[in-house]
Amino acid sequence: MPAGRRAGPTHTRQEILDAARDAFAVRGYDAVSLRAIARQAGVDPALVHHFFKSKSELFATAMQLPIDPKPFLTALLAGERDTLGIRLVHALVELWDRPAGFQGFLGLIRGAVSHDDAALLLREFVTREILGPIATAAAPDTPQTRAALAGSQIVGLAMARKIARIEPIATADPAWLAATVGPTIQHYLTAPLPPSRKRRA
Amino acid sequence: MPAGRRAGPTHTRQEILDAARDAFAVRGYDAVSLRAIARQAGVDPALVHHFFKSKSELFATAMQLPIDPKPFLTALLAGERDTLGIRLVHALVELWDRPAGFQGFLGLIRGAVSHDDAALLLREFVTREILGPIATAAAPDTPQTRAALAGSQIVGLAMARKIARIEPIATADPAWLAATVGPTIQHYLTAPLPPSRKRRA
Repeated sequence: MPAGRRAGPTHTRQEILDAARDAFAVRGYDAVSLRAIARQAGVDPALVHHFFKSKSELFATAMQLPIDPKPFLTALLAGERDTLGIRLVHALVELWDRPAGFQGFLGLIRGAVSHDDAALLLREFVTREILGPIATAAAPDTPQTRAALAGSQIVGLAMARKIARIEPIATADPAWLAATVGPTIQHYLTAPLPPSRKRRA
Repeated sequence: MPAGRRAGPTHTRQEILDAARDAFAVRGYDAVSLRAIARQAGVDPALVHHFFKSKSELFATAMQLPIDPKPFLTALLAGERDTLGIRLVHALVELWDRPAGFQGFLGLIRGAVSHDDAALLLREFVTREILGPIATAAAPDTPQTRAALAGSQIVGLAMARKIARIEPIATADPAWLAATVGPTIQHYLTAPLPPSRKRRA
């Protein structure tokens, strides 16, 4: 058999990634399990765990995100709670600015503005793996509200810096953005907020 | 001649709108003049002025925005400066929530995430006609910086409420969103900000 064709570990890993991309695109983030991806790829679940430590790592790889969010969050949450907003903005901007560091996020955002399925995926991934854990650690009351508010500012910041490229945000120093936008995130994560109210039907 | 074909005012108005959409898509907002649109539509510039009071009104109509930004801003800026952020968020959310009220903005945002030309258009229109005038009226120092920061939060809020539909933002009462996100906008428009710094090359 020719070397590396249709059987080696590289090929299996790629089949898992393809199955994962399909599954996430159709069913969002929360409803997809590593077991279901293994089934769709036609491999043993143990093989998925051999290549990818967690669902978040598999997702990040399949979607070409620059890092696995789990260790990123662990490092972030190990620091002081009072500087969480500033450190989060600084770390995200530096990540987006890496070569190819924004590619995966751009794909998620592009999908979300075009298809409802992709909007679900962006919403579930960001809430479950990034902002939910941060909000829960920062202030355990109403973490969903805090995560949504912080998310709105972070997605808008990504749009302004990397997509619409509005100056001075587009070329600003990451430390300046952290000092300017970080306090907004900190406020959403830890300050008292007005009690949540639904729109009247 | 059959009634209304190729000659009536409805047809001329439509030709002007088609020419405007083409011109804005290719050249952005700032570089396009009513005179150039008239030339492209093959009509006298006076006729463009007959149908549309201003470039902003022509743009809003061509892009299916729910209102002309000029009278919207005049009303907004007539109120108290201390409540500008809260009133802006409240007014925008109510506008987006109208039937078809978000359609035009969605088109602008979809375009911006897919094409650089459309990103230029979104950036120039929002800066020139909406956030620039607000920032200049609110705090005449560094209006571009303030407009960009406020814009980042507003675009992110639109994404969270209307596109990704993240709860509780998606179904929150407009007054609650105004009370929660309005102070962020007010801060960006009027509070002291760290001096702007460029990224090191």
